[in-house]
Amino acid sequence: MHDAGDRNHRIVVTLRHGEVLGPEDFRADTTAVPTPGPGQFLSRTIYLSLDRLYGWVAHGAALPSQRLNPGDVMAGETVAQVLESRHPDHRPGEYIVVRNGWQQFALSSGQDVRKLDPGNAPISTALGVLGAPGLTGYVGLVYLGEPKPGQTVVVTAATEPVGCTAGQSARLIGARAVGIADSEDKCEYALRELGYAACINYRSGDLASHLRRVCPDGVHVNVDSVGGHVLTTVVSQLALHARVVLCGATEGYDSDPVPPGSLLGPLVAARATVRGLVVDDHLHRLPELVNVVGGWIRSGQFHYRQEITEGLASAPEAFCRLLQGESFGRALVRVAPEHL
Amino acid sequence: MHDAGDRNHRIVVTLRHGEVLGPEDFRADTTAVPTPGPGQFLSRTIYLSLDRLYGWVAHGAALPSQRLNPGDVMAGETVAQVLESRHPDHRPGEYIVVRNGWQQFALSSGQDVRKLDPGNAPISTALGVLGAPGLTGYVGLVYLGEPKPGQTVVVTAATEPVGCTAGQSARLIGARAVGIADSEDKCEYALRELGYAACINYRSGDLASHLRRVCPDGVHVNVDSVGGHVLTTVVSQLALHARVVLCGATEGYDSDPVPPGSLLGPLVAARATVRGLVVDDHLHRLPELVNVVGGWIRSGQFHYRQEITEGLASAPEAFCRLLQGESFGRALVRVAPEHL
Repeated sequence: MHDAGDRNHRIVVTLRHGEVLGPEDFRADTTAVPTPGPGQFLSRTIYLSLDRLYGWVAHGAALPSQRLNPGDVMAGETVAQVLESRHPDHRPGEYIVVRNGWQQFALSSGQDVRKLDPGNAPISTALGVLGAPGLTGYVGLVYLGEPKPGQTVVVTAATEPVGCTAGQSARLIGARAVGIADSEDKCEYALRELGYAACINYRSGDLASHLRRVCPDGVHVNVDSVGGHVLTTVVSQLALHARVVLCGATEGYDSDPVPPGSLLGPLVAARATVRGLVVDDHLHRLPELVNVVGGWIRSGQFHYRQEITEGLASAPEAFCRLLQGESFGRALVRVAPEHL
Repeated sequence: MHDAGDRNHRIVVTLRHGEVLGPEDFRADTTAVPTPGPGQFLSRTIYLSLDRLYGWVAHGAALPSQRLNPGDVMAGETVAQVLESRHPDHRPGEYIVVRNGWQQFALSSGQDVRKLDPGNAPISTALGVLGAPGLTGYVGLVYLGEPKPGQTVVVTAATEPVGCTAGQSARLIGARAVGIADSEDKCEYALRELGYAACINYRSGDLASHLRRVCPDGVHVNVDSVGGHVLTTVVSQLALHARVVLCGATEGYDSDPVPPGSLLGPLVAARATVRGLVVDDHLHRLPELVNVVGGWIRSGQFHYRQEITEGLASAPEAFCRLLQGESFGRALVRVAPEHL
């Protein structure tokens, strides 16, 4: 329960539609904590997920159904706890994944709400390796990449939720995982914590020759979430009948130009298969993800990293930092403690 | 049999390695007609296939195993007739596909030789719709594209051997074939003779809006052999779960730049599958091609076009014309009459 005098702190969008998203695109306000009507429940936000995709939401560039108007609460996926319920399927105390957005309290009719078992894994993982990003990496690797034991799987953005799930899943089903990341720190973490057989910092020199050295038999599966020249370089090293899985997880697919002749020719020569993955098509596999990867987490074989910023008021700055730089692990804001 | 006084007219390469291949890259000469040794046979060239791919051979840019030295007979696939044989599997009078190159007579040890049944279809088709190009189009459509009845199949270079086989096969297995070609003449031929439901001249304006008009449900299968901006435009119109087959049949994959964001994003959004096809992997399906497409040819349901130049001496000029312009149908040289 919240106290009778509590206010609902929120962060709303101003929608300047400027070139670069800045803290001035957001404004803090407070409202009364709402009261659930019939078929509704009230929940308290615990973790807020910061996601690059939502940079477009703030600019008004999203799908019409997701578009925000000035003064709307900024959108975002959250882990929350049910406080009061007039919904038949939800009980106070329950942990859930729900799109509360950037606010402390919100009502829900139960649509697209997923219940969490806090005994399975830390609840924050429901926004990362046991949520949509993890599902992307797991399904991309297992169902679209389909590596055979001993085959080499190259994973880009190797330490981020999509990549770290694809890479560790590859290792744990008997394949050989090779990561690509954008810093020495991340490569060291990928080797030491995530169990990659090798990890290449693509900023450290000639990616193609590094890849040839660590993938002497070529790349059998590529789970890609960056696109651009990293993708074309990996494609130049494909083994025969390789599978390339495009996870579409970042903005990379729409930024870097693809140099002439660098992508399609090598795909044909390798008789490769390229498949596009949109995670919404695979939500029915969430229980499998929670079961399999959750089990690996509990047995200590699977690791992940989170960057947690404290307090809702810090969200705009943390979000703008994320959009401008690189992330290292899942970017979350802790809006409230897990247990009151 | 050839006459005792016959000479073997040949065309050899001079290999200037100039920027553009010209008639001066070739020279005519004559040698004695060779005599088969044990395990060899002598054949007489009837049709010579002119193929853009061999532009690279003449420039010394091919694989080492295919590279020509100055004075070597220019390489090329041919339909020929066995004249004298000391080979246990080949008899005089037999029609075959063999790589005699640009000469009237040649010896063979039988390697990579394919026998032809002249009762099945005109023997010249063994270099086109019943040969490697036809196999590319047929396998690309049937085994990699896998259209369901009523689905829309877009075929680029719609009138050429690869495309005309893919497009007509699509129609004859119950799909809807839409062609793309580079002239009004070819589009008219595609509609009138090849039975395409629609054909778009990509030079006549906005390809994307033309495609939207004739593919209102999107493109379910794309059999592509040109790459470049035509491919990216077709990809922008894919239906959900579309299949894109890259036949790698022309030089297009290595020429046009792919504009940023135009290829990978739409592939992901459509959850598409892209597969590269190299026809050498599918030679075991040649009997199926000859049986199925040969049957369609005999029943008058399947058409094709050839551009036949008369006489070996015309080959250099015809070949250079082919490399500089567009072809309309399979480019062949008639080196000798079919029946002596």
